[in-house]
Amino acid sequence: MTAVAHFEEIALQLAAQFEKTAVKRDKDGGNAKQERDLIRESGLLKLIIPTEYGGLGGNWHDVFNVIRTFAHVDSSLAHVFGYHFINLVTPHLCGTTQQKEHFYRETAKHNYFWGNAFNPVDIKLKAERTPTGYVLDGIKTFCSGSVDSDILLVSALLDGQNEPLLAVIPSNRIGVEINGDWDNMGQRQTDSGSIQFQQVEVLPSEVLQRGFYASEFSQLRLNIATFVLNHVYLGIAEGALKSALSYTREQTRPRSMTQTSAIEDPIIQHHYGQFFVQIEAANLVVKKADQLLQQLWDHPETITANDRSELDNALQTAKIFTTQVGLDITSKIFEVMGSRSTASYYGFDRYWRNLRTMTLHVPVDTSLQALGKKFLLGE
Amino acid sequence: MTAVAHFEEIALQLAAQFEKTAVKRDKDGGNAKQERDLIRESGLLKLIIPTEYGGLGGNWHDVFNVIRTFAHVDSSLAHVFGYHFINLVTPHLCGTTQQKEHFYRETAKHNYFWGNAFNPVDIKLKAERTPTGYVLDGIKTFCSGSVDSDILLVSALLDGQNEPLLAVIPSNRIGVEINGDWDNMGQRQTDSGSIQFQQVEVLPSEVLQRGFYASEFSQLRLNIATFVLNHVYLGIAEGALKSALSYTREQTRPRSMTQTSAIEDPIIQHHYGQFFVQIEAANLVVKKADQLLQQLWDHPETITANDRSELDNALQTAKIFTTQVGLDITSKIFEVMGSRSTASYYGFDRYWRNLRTMTLHVPVDTSLQALGKKFLLGE
Amino acid sequence: MTAVAHFEEIALQLAAQFEKTAVKRDKDGGNAKQERDLIRESGLLKLIIPTEYGGLGGNWHDVFNVIRTFAHVDSSLAHVFGYHFINLVTPHLCGTTQQKEHFYRETAKHNYFWGNAFNPVDIKLKAERTPTGYVLDGIKTFCSGSVDSDILLVSALLDGQNEPLLAVIPSNRIGVEINGDWDNMGQRQTDSGSIQFQQVEVLPSEVLQRGFYASEFSQLRLNIATFVLNHVYLGIAEGALKSALSYTREQTRPRSMTQTSAIEDPIIQHHYGQFFVQIEAANLVVKKADQLLQQLWDHPETITANDRSELDNALQTAKIFTTQVGLDITSKIFEVMGSRSTASYYGFDRYWRNLRTMTLHVPVDTSLQALGKKFLLGE
Amino acid sequence: MTAVAHFEEIALQLAAQFEKTAVKRDKDGGNAKQERDLIRESGLLKLIIPTEYGGLGGNWHDVFNVIRTFAHVDSSLAHVFGYHFINLVTPHLCGTTQQKEHFYRETAKHNYFWGNAFNPVDIKLKAERTPTGYVLDGIKTFCSGSVDSDILLVSALLDGQNEPLLAVIPSNRIGVEINGDWDNMGQRQTDSGSIQFQQVEVLPSEVLQRGFYASEFSQLRLNIATFVLNHVYLGIAEGALKSALSYTREQTRPRSMTQTSAIEDPIIQHHYGQFFVQIEAANLVVKKADQLLQQLWDHPETITANDRSELDNALQTAKIFTTQVGLDITSKIFEVMGSRSTASYYGFDRYWRNLRTMTLHVPVDTSLQALGKKFLLGE
Repeated sequence: MTAVAHFEEIALQLAAQFEKTAVKRDKDGGNAKQERDLIRESGLLKLIIPTEYGGLGGNWHDVFNVIRTFAHVDSSLAHVFGYHFINLVTPHLCGTTQQKEHFYRETAKHNYFWGNAFNPVDIKLKAERTPTGYVLDGIKTFCSGSVDSDILLVSALLDGQNEPLLAVIPSNRIGVEINGDWDNMGQRQTDSGSIQFQQVEVLPSEVLQRGFYASEFSQLRLNIATFVLNHVYLGIAEGALKSALSYTREQTRPRSMTQTSAIEDPIIQHHYGQFFVQIEAANLVVKKADQLLQQLWDHPETITANDRSELDNALQTAKIFTTQVGLDITSKIFEVMGSRSTASYYGFDRYWRNLRTMTLHVPVDTSLQALGKKFLLGE
Repeated sequence: MTAVAHFEEIALQLAAQFEKTAVKRDKDGGNAKQERDLIRESGLLKLIIPTEYGGLGGNWHDVFNVIRTFAHVDSSLAHVFGYHFINLVTPHLCGTTQQKEHFYRETAKHNYFWGNAFNPVDIKLKAERTPTGYVLDGIKTFCSGSVDSDILLVSALLDGQNEPLLAVIPSNRIGVEINGDWDNMGQRQTDSGSIQFQQVEVLPSEVLQRGFYASEFSQLRLNIATFVLNHVYLGIAEGALKSALSYTREQTRPRSMTQTSAIEDPIIQHHYGQFFVQIEAANLVVKKADQLLQQLWDHPETITANDRSELDNALQTAKIFTTQVGLDITSKIFEVMGSRSTASYYGFDRYWRNLRTMTLHVPVDTSLQALGKKFLLGE
Repeated sequence: MTAVAHFEEIALQLAAQFEKTAVKRDKDGGNAKQERDLIRESGLLKLIIPTEYGGLGGNWHDVFNVIRTFAHVDSSLAHVFGYHFINLVTPHLCGTTQQKEHFYRETAKHNYFWGNAFNPVDIKLKAERTPTGYVLDGIKTFCSGSVDSDILLVSALLDGQNEPLLAVIPSNRIGVEINGDWDNMGQRQTDSGSIQFQQVEVLPSEVLQRGFYASEFSQLRLNIATFVLNHVYLGIAEGALKSALSYTREQTRPRSMTQTSAIEDPIIQHHYGQFFVQIEAANLVVKKADQLLQQLWDHPETITANDRSELDNALQTAKIFTTQVGLDITSKIFEVMGSRSTASYYGFDRYWRNLRTMTLHVPVDTSLQALGKKFLLGE
Repeated sequence: MTAVAHFEEIALQLAAQFEKTAVKRDKDGGNAKQERDLIRESGLLKLIIPTEYGGLGGNWHDVFNVIRTFAHVDSSLAHVFGYHFINLVTPHLCGTTQQKEHFYRETAKHNYFWGNAFNPVDIKLKAERTPTGYVLDGIKTFCSGSVDSDILLVSALLDGQNEPLLAVIPSNRIGVEINGDWDNMGQRQTDSGSIQFQQVEVLPSEVLQRGFYASEFSQLRLNIATFVLNHVYLGIAEGALKSALSYTREQTRPRSMTQTSAIEDPIIQHHYGQFFVQIEAANLVVKKADQLLQQLWDHPETITANDRSELDNALQTAKIFTTQVGLDITSKIFEVMGSRSTASYYGFDRYWRNLRTMTLHVPVDTSLQALGKKFLLGE
């Protein structure tokens, strides 16, 4: 309990730092080197690593809380911080026990920041077997957290094999060119650009032996990515609402002569009532999914297909709900703040831009349709 | 645990009975004498009465589960069943320890079905002091569950006193005329009509001594009414969705030549996905409030104003959310069922009519505004 | 101009009559014999018949105005009145010039009220050739205005022919059994039940010779049905809003102590502002389509496929928009009226029930998808 | 007719030019000197000036069409172009006949681009009488089109007078400091920053003699600003939809294996159907208001208070509707394009940013409430 409180405290201090420069860095885009180094120094990169391997022994709730705390002020940093964990736990999920231990220990020891070159839908990276291992050639896109990473999780297509090859390699391996070419309307400091692989050697020990489909447990890999995103979504919506609340209280002009403050306006109150309800409900759907994940994580051996299906229902529900509520709130806050709140100085549009950018990878329509289909089929 | 399972089983059996005649009874309106007697026989009227007073010793979760089970098929019976408990616990909340025990015991012993003549906003019933107690004169409206009740909770204005007089009297007390004049578009068998009081005597022992504002605990009275209503709302929405699901699976015609069944239609799937998300979120907001209530109920002595405020936030959130979601679902189900589902035979419009009728007493706008105001003031 | 004003005046007088009994008749369902006879006596059944054939020489705007005027108070009567015209003009659209003239003249002379047994999607009625004409056997459903009709438009499948056989026969032809079995949650006096046909003879002169697909003009048949429905939808929404407006002004209780009337409430005002915007926009989309129809109707020879496509875009837009807006308004009016407005006495739920029932035949989803597809294909 | 066609052609050519650099200029912000000069060269600044004064003799429909054409690709240029006309016609509305003629002629002759320092709500600019006229001191904010303007419309408070002083002065008058300090999240090249006035002399002939409240006609001034804004809103929504349509057709990836193109996806089609309906309805509400304006403009002497009230209803309806529809479309387009459409290269977020920024000056809530209030009062 105290340790968790401690994590939260560190996270809040970091967030306070990040907030000071968030608007400027959103404008600049590119790599948030300085802030990434602050994260490194904080020790939080080891949060989920069990204490026996030199980590802090946190659980997913702890990780998600930190992600949301960062997302309140800077959803790019929340994103790369969250992706670090998705990648870091992949040897645990898809590797042997030795690999799990190895990568946890090495990360704890060297304080590695993991980057992402994993995206099984993106099929332009090929692996080929060589006498001494594998060699990678091709390109990966949407590689969040790649720039300034220490280590990369990579997936690649291997001829004659259905399942992608999963490998963990140092980011500075010869032949890896991290392009740093992410320039999008939102999530501008996530370094989600492309990586070029030219004859990149992979050692057998770097290949995760059990793979993606080894067990129900290993297949949590994809779910975990969605969990991280949901907390970024929720964090953005909460951050937007917090900013709006301060602004309405302190700066919004009364709408009528009979009001001394905008907070007396019945329609502004009505909007905030609706925001409150939406955020409350969003928190509850997110938390329900979180609890299911932690239960499965704690009992990897006993996970059934049904457990994963139930987890996925809760997870997709959370994803859909936070997307819908978040887009609504990040656009409507301006109506309870007023026209002067559009000054670039405040950067309040970044909430909508960040959320809008993030919520497109798997379309919310596709999630809705899949959920409805399961429901109709009685699954 | 087994006892709870037992309650649920009894409730499910009753609901199965009620369902058979629900459409016809909705049309007829009036008093559901036969079904009320089935409820009496089931023993469920004693559900929340502690075992020491001859009750079943259930908690609020048990009561709410039964209410929702009834509401899936017949929200009028859910309503009068729920109101029974609101009234039954009023001596516990607002009376002396002796009164609490007395009314619990008497209810358990005689299997009383409580009716409602409590509505502090409705101010046309006056009480006057007499040498031997009080006498009531006037009229009360919206007296849910009054017809065929055994006992009534009454509130009346007493000259020179801010607080309403609360009394418990037999429904057949001389001078009490239960008009049975409820004829509304929804909740048609709730007997929510008027009661005329002509020189009705009230004994001092029938007056709840501590009153409405005696403590934080006593003030839960109003909250509990909203809890009951929320479970009826949620039950209606769930019932509507269950009916729609069966109908779409079994009867809806495919929308295009390339489909063999309507459940293959991507847009129908998409709608059901949205319904699923809404119902999931509604369940979570309702359950969060329920847990807070049970905690306070279990520790009546330690309730603070802050606890009640927090409870009220959760409760209003649940009310607003279930109202919005329920109205949406009960109207949209027709779009995933098709035109033949409008036949009177099915009675599918009763979901919307019942919910629309119930969700107006305290306007959802007023709840939204109040919640937003608290939020803006940082309370 | 004066004639049109005259039609409108007659329609308003009829509507005032209908209004008095609308709530009771909605409850009763069945055939509105007395009101149908009032329509007969008014002369309005001849409204669109050219003066040269004994009619009143009105155009579609006149017809639609009367439909909407009726729909403000009784959408069942609006519905059967509108369907009368859809059927009456079918010989004009799909018959020879002689048939057009014949049926116009006969209708004007005998003041026929046309009923509907046309629904090309409903394929359980078969026609067979006989030496002297055809014979019909089978059943038709959704036969709006069939009970108490004088004459019926029938479509039937003819073996070996793609196109349905269209025929006009007296409603009392031997073998025609109008079942009067419509009992639905809405549009309760439209007599939209089934008709059983047993060895019903059809004379060659009763068969519309040119048929459904004769020309671009003949194909307006389906469009015209949608036009009539749109005006019923819009009329319902307008009627609901009118009722709500009177009720809020005269009966709704103030929401707070500081208000002397509910109309001062900022949030009630806000809702009405939104309703006003929605109804204004709905009127404009409906009118745009109407103008296109009247243009095509006035120049039947020159209609192109493109004209019909453009008409259909405007028409589907109107259908979708009025459906969405109407469902919203007919449900939300209760929030600006309050809980006492749910009394059966007012019958305010009929607006939603009627609209919900009517707006399902071709799903609004299907219209949206079709419109979007055309738009994406650049058609 | 041909002249109008000509204006439209010129506008389309300019828009094609603007489009090439719109994304870059949105990023840069600041003054669009080059594009403003292209507008100057086009002659379109004289569009509404009667031919007798050297103008092109267009009407409001012509002006609005050009505004919308610009707004499809660059809403900042549409904005400053539109504001030019609001200001240019102010001497016509609020000045003497001589002033009207004078400013029309001078503008036609010198091809003036008018800027805005009129905002009667912004009360920090004071005027004082001097022996030779007036002197202005203070600051104005939201001065759209001020940078690079030739002439400015100014309003200022004059001690002891209810009505603001309206004056037209050269932008380079001594003491006028146009700060060029507009840096907002949207409408980034509108130069809507502040102007500092230090002891700025105003000649009596520069003061509009009849003033703001001279007549019903003069009071159209405020309405006209809203008209211009509505066309910018609608143009943004149309531009967003056009961009989305091209992108979905050409670049969006199919959502399932069974589709060869995203345009086959039923849910994408459904979204586009809804967009189509919304844009159609928005066009119609905007056009209805436009027609009323042109009628009043053409008959300035006969305008009644009732005419202006009716105009305002139509205008507010258009404002509310285009705001709601536009915000919905500019956010949802991403769902029918997919994640790669968020690349900065496309700049598709500018539609939402621009619209969100513009739609806050008079809150849409305030317009809704005002409209609803009028409706409830039966005005």
